[in-house]
Formats: sequence, structure tokens, C-alpha cells
Amino acid sequence: MERELSPARQAWCAARAKIAACAEMVWRLGADDPRKVVHGLKVGLALAIVSHFYYLRPLYDGVGGAAMWAVMTVVVVFEFTVGGSLYKGLNRGAATLTGGGLAIGVHWAASKAGQTGELVILNGAVFILASLVTFSRFIPVIKTRFDYGATIFILTFSLVTVSGYRVDQLVNLAQQRLSTIAIGISICLIICTLICPVWAGTELHLLITSNMDKLADSLDCCVEDYFTGKEDRRTGGYKSVLNSKASEDSLGNLAVWEPAHGRFGFQFPWSQYQKIGAALRNCAYCMEALNATSHSQIQAPELMKKHLMDACMKLSSKSSEILRELSSSIKSMRSTSSSSSALMAKEIKEAVEEVKRTLSSLPSNYQLSNEEDVEMLYRVKKQSLMESLPLVSFAFLLMEISVKVDAVDKAVQELAELASFEPPAGDKINIPINK
Amino acid sequence: MERELSPARQAWCAARAKIAACAEMVWRLGADDPRKVVHGLKVGLALAIVSHFYYLRPLYDGVGGAAMWAVMTVVVVFEFTVGGSLYKGLNRGAATLTGGGLAIGVHWAASKAGQTGELVILNGAVFILASLVTFSRFIPVIKTRFDYGATIFILTFSLVTVSGYRVDQLVNLAQQRLSTIAIGISICLIICTLICPVWAGTELHLLITSNMDKLADSLDCCVEDYFTGKEDRRTGGYKSVLNSKASEDSLGNLAVWEPAHGRFGFQFPWSQYQKIGAALRNCAYCMEALNATSHSQIQAPELMKKHLMDACMKLSSKSSEILRELSSSIKSMRSTSSSSSALMAKEIKEAVEEVKRTLSSLPSNYQLSNEEDVEMLYRVKKQSLMESLPLVSFAFLLMEISVKVDAVDKAVQELAELASFEPPAGDKINIPINK
Repeated sequence: MERELSPARQAWCAARAKIAACAEMVWRLGADDPRKVVHGLKVGLALAIVSHFYYLRPLYDGVGGAAMWAVMTVVVVFEFTVGGSLYKGLNRGAATLTGGGLAIGVHWAASKAGQTGELVILNGAVFILASLVTFSRFIPVIKTRFDYGATIFILTFSLVTVSGYRVDQLVNLAQQRLSTIAIGISICLIICTLICPVWAGTELHLLITSNMDKLADSLDCCVEDYFTGKEDRRTGGYKSVLNSKASEDSLGNLAVWEPAHGRFGFQFPWSQYQKIGAALRNCAYCMEALNATSHSQIQAPELMKKHLMDACMKLSSKSSEILRELSSSIKSMRSTSSSSSALMAKEIKEAVEEVKRTLSSLPSNYQLSNEEDVEMLYRVKKQSLMESLPLVSFAFLLMEISVKVDAVDKAVQELAELASFEPPAGDKINIPINK
Repeated sequence: MERELSPARQAWCAARAKIAACAEMVWRLGADDPRKVVHGLKVGLALAIVSHFYYLRPLYDGVGGAAMWAVMTVVVVFEFTVGGSLYKGLNRGAATLTGGGLAIGVHWAASKAGQTGELVILNGAVFILASLVTFSRFIPVIKTRFDYGATIFILTFSLVTVSGYRVDQLVNLAQQRLSTIAIGISICLIICTLICPVWAGTELHLLITSNMDKLADSLDCCVEDYFTGKEDRRTGGYKSVLNSKASEDSLGNLAVWEPAHGRFGFQFPWSQYQKIGAALRNCAYCMEALNATSHSQIQAPELMKKHLMDACMKLSSKSSEILRELSSSIKSMRSTSSSSSALMAKEIKEAVEEVKRTLSSLPSNYQLSNEEDVEMLYRVKKQSLMESLPLVSFAFLLMEISVKVDAVDKAVQELAELASFEPPAGDKINIPINK
């Protein structure tokens, strides 16, 4: 009936479409990772408990705002991962203790110095300590381990110093505050650890192994795409590896705070995962160049491609096989058997040699089948080398990738040693001894 | 005299050495970037002022701990960059206002519901709102722009709801808290902006241009290293480009909060810098492959290298010249003249063609000067192709880099348009019209 919508109706429709898109996005966010929804509920629960605690316990009736610190602690300490909550909780506890203790000490010293002296000492102490601790936050080890603690140290020190000037019961106040903060931290950690815990260590473990699988898939697909001319969506999987450094670093830094959980013991060598991540990224850089090569404007003639296809595919499948083997070794936390990895190393070496051999025979075959005349040969060769350029680079990069995969292998072996992986379940592969 | 040190003395010496190394590191940190030291002093100053304020103003005498919020605000809001402080300050202000307002509303509704109903409503509201807002922190736009605000919203809402149950003067309390927070934010922003301000936007600007220069230097050095066999330390400069995504993203997100400053107007297109950064990283990935190629175990014979040297160096110097030109264009905020960039595009095209030409002539020259026999030729060619593998890949990657540099160029042109760069100062290069 209505052909043209009024402007108001149009705006309404546009707004409704936008809201629907938003809702869809939010829904997808929760559906893709329900733990995010659970995290929200956990925070809500922790706050409800801590405020309930506040309503019902007459213990805190006399103290006025002290219970506030429990609420505040829950809000700022509760993080998505257990490691994150532990990092913030322990930092907050320790910083409150040391900051408060130091402030009381300074206060005691200042109280001996008369009215004016007291003001100078208190102000001076706040200025000097705040400056020093703020600067210390730029020191790498403090930045990664104690950044939050440094903030809370300054906060507690300043608050106690300032409020100490008015309130006389400093020690009493400090005691109350510490106990409420301890309650907040305990509620956080209990809920965080007991209800569907998200361990930073496990996340890092999964991130690294999934990145390994993605790289292996990408490698296979990229080579197949190049030789068959198809487009596989999984080819771009390596791109997420390129940008995962930030996540790996943050998860690695949080994982060190976590106690033993699942198959990860106390003092698990999490930093080795970061090294494996770096080795994987080196692989991914080469993959990026490989991908660029396969999309080059210059395209090698089909005949040439066909000639190299088998050797290249063999090499890439060997490399990706190693990556998958390493990934499953990390997943199962069993080291690869030395005989099977020796076999793999041998196979990949052979595959590299085969690519080299095929490359060497490439232009000659191509030409000599066509004509024997040197003059002709000369011209065709000129042409063919130019055309073979991306193909030769492609093969070369594949060889480079096999070198980078070897570096990943070394990093994983190191992890197997540091984390004392179990020995392999039993050699499933029969190794021919005299090959 | 003393040949062997006692264990205690040894431990003391070791500890002293460690402390000295630490002190050296901290000193270097400050000496390399004195702004970090200044930042520490600024925070100290802000805290001293805010606590002074607290001591002297009788205005806050009756309020008890209200001034505490000013101290707390200064500690948590004061960030290294102006953008960071603004982000936190504005988030904190807005979140306190909305969280507090909503809490008072809920409180009013709950007060109509009787003793039990009140408790249920208050607890339910805390649970539901905390869950929802915590989940919303996973939504990308909230994560990058309002993450801190979401935390403070939950904090204020919970605190007001909980404490509201006891204190009757809710509106009065909210007013006090808002005014103290406003005082804290104002002191932060004034000190942050007036004393040696560090602008996130300027930092991003400098990071991008220095990355561009580093890439250009790396490219030149890498090619020179490869052909001359020397090792230049600057070759590794591109490595810092590989890992600068996190810094670029965080600076870019903070820069949008900053007002116009220096040569950067209001609503400067900061996100375009991130796009340029991505284009630079694509370049750096290829540089990584190029570097791997130049360190390959297979080395091309010197004669071959010499043959390709001039063409490769010309191409790489043209690419790095464009990068430097783009960097200086961003630095001076003047667009490159269209005639000079057309000339450059032409030159780089010619350089690519020359590399291709030289590559085509490579094996033929190399062989035909040695012998004419087809049989011999066949064998030598086999050898030479294998040897020329890394060299050919090297040349190919150089061409790929020139393509990636072109993408950087496009991104910079876009920036020039979006940020309305000034026209070029005047064409210094004479362009031959008929070439």
C-alpha cells in the first residue's frame, strides 16, 4: 500500500536495523564463547555475596564505610582468568600491606616533628614515594609482574598518610581495611576458581596448539591453492598467528601466578610457550611471503608448475605434518619419540633435496623437449627463467619454512624437557632401520 | 693478598654486582627517556597538591573520607599520555555520574517495596547490572573505548546501592563524591597537559614515521649486506616494526580522546595511522623473508651476485627512497607533489623491469661465456639454477617489497587527504616531460 516511507519511518527502520545488527553481534559474542556470559554472572554473584555480607553482618556496623573496600576489591580484582584475578588479588593484598605499613611508619616519624614539620614530612613522603613508585612502573619486570601493585601501593600510602592526619586510630583502621580487602579477595578467588574456572595457562596452551594447527592447515592450503588454482578460505589461517603476540604475552604473564591445575604442575615453564609462539610467528612471516608469491602477477606456465607440484606438495605436507605432530605432542603432553622425529627429519631433508633436484631439472626438461638449437634454447630459456621466477621463489620459501618449522621443533623439544613431558605412548610408526 | 674469598664475601660481591646492574638499567631507563622521570614527578606533584588541598580546606572537614576520592582519582587516572588521562578521567566522571544516578533511582524504587522487597530489589539490581556490564566489556567497541568506564560504573553502582542502605543522605553523598572526583580529574588533567605533556597522538605519529625510516634503513642495509658480505647492525631495524602493533593500537585508541594539539586538529584521522602501520608490517614480513634468504645456506656464486647487484640495489634504493619520502611527508604534514610521486612510480617500475631483464640475461651470460657445447651447457645450467635459487628469490622478494611499499604509499596518500595535508612546498625535482 505505502510506496514511500516517511522520513521518520525511514529513520526508525534504519535504527531498528542497526539495533538488530548490534544485538546479533552481542548474541554471537556470547554464543561463540559462553564462558564470557558465565564470567558476567560470576562477577554479579560475587558482588551480590559481598553486599549481602555487608547487610547482614553486625560486625561491620560500627565501622561505617569499611565494607566498601570489600565491594571495591571484588569489582577491580575479578578478572576473566584465574591468573588475572590472582595477579590482581595478590598484588592488591601485598601492596595494601606494605603501603599501609610504610605510611604508618612515616606517620609515626612525622608525629614527633611538630605541627609544621609533620606537614612537611607527610607531604614530602607522598611526593617522593609517589614519584619513585610511578617511575618504577616503567621498569620491565615491575611492568609485567607488579604494575597493579605499584598503583595500589601509591594509593594506600597516600590515603593512609592523608587520612592519618585526621583519624587517630590508624592501626585499627589499617586492620579493618586489610580484613575487608582479604574478604573481597577471598570471595573473588573462590568464585573464580570453583565456578567454571578459566585458566590463563590452559588458554595459552590452547592458543599455541591451535596456532600450530592453523599454520599447518594454511601451509597445506596455500600450496594446494597455488598448484590447483582454487581458493581455500583456510589459507588465511596464518594471519591470526601474525597478530597473536599480545595475547600470548598477556596470558603468559598471568599464567605464572596460577597454582598447579589440570596437567600443569607448579612452576610450569610458561615462558617456553612464548618462545614457541615466537618461532611460530617466524614461520607465519614466511607464510605471508609465500602467500604473496602465490598471488604474484607473474604466473609460471602450467607445465612448469606441474613439474614441481609433487615435490613442493611433498615438502609442504612434511612440514605441516611435523607441525601437527608437535601440536599433538603438546596437546597430549607426551614428547615425540626420538626415532619418529629422526625419521621425520630425514624425510623432510629428502623432500628438500627432491625439490632442489626437480628445480635443477626444470628448465632443461622444459626446453630440451622443444628444440635443440642453441640459439632457440637461449631465447626460450630467457623467457622461461622470467616466468619461473615466482615458482622458484615459492619453492625456495617452502624450503625456508621447513627451516623455521625445525626451529619450532627445537622449541617444543625444549618445552618437553623443561616440563618433563611423558615419554611417547609407543612407537606407532615402523621405522625401517636401513633406509 | 686475599686469594680466595669467603662464601659470604662472594655472595656479597655477587649481590653488589647485581644491584649495580639493576641501578645501571634503571638509570638508562631514565636517561633514555627523561619524560618517564618527569611523569613520576608529575604524579608526585599532583598527589601532593591534592593532599594539601585536603589538609587545608575546611570545606571537607565535615565530610569525613570524601577527600579520599580525590586522592584515589589522581592515583588511578593519571596516565603517561594526555590521551590516557583523558580516557580514564572522562570514563571515570561519566561512569560515576550514570552509575550513581541509576543507583539512586533503584534505591528510590526499592524503598517503596518494604523491608524484604527492598533487599531483593537491591541485591537483584546489583547482580543483574554487574553481570550485564561485565559481559558488555567483551564487546569490541566498549573494550577499546569504555573498558575503564564499565568497571567504574559497576563500582559506583554497587557502592551507592550498598551504602545507600545505611546512609540516608544519598543525593548529598553523591554530590560530594562527584565534586571530589571532579577536583581529582581536574588536577590530573591540568598537570598532565601543562607540564611537559606527552600526547598519545604525537607518539603514534613519531612511532609510525620512525618505523618507516627503520624499514628504509633495514632494506638498504640488508641488500648491501647481501651483496658486499658485511654485517650492518641496522639491518635488524625492521624487527621492531614486526612487533609494534600493540603499541600502535593502544596509542591510536588513546589519541582519539585528545583535543587538538600542535599540528593535529580536532578529529584527526588517527585510525589511518593504524592502517599505515599495518601496511608497514606487511612490508616488514617480506623483509623478514628477505633477510632469511640472504642468510640462506646456499649461496649464489659471486659472479652471479655481481651481475644482479646493480639492478637489485637500484630497486631497493628506490623503494627505500619512497619510504623516506613518505616518512618526511608525514613528518612535515605536506603531501608529496603528484608529479614527483608519478616520477617515483615510474622509476620504481623501471627498476623492477631492470631486475627482470638482468635476471633473464643471468644464466645465459654466465654460461655462454664459458662454453657453447649443449651437453656442457646443460650440466652447468643445472648447477647454476640451483645456486641461483636464493639470489632469484632475493630479487623476487625485492620486487614484492616494492609492491608492499606501493600499498604504504596509498595509505599515506589517504592520510594526506583525510587530514588535509598542506600542498608540497614546491617541486624541487625537474621532471622531464618527454621521457
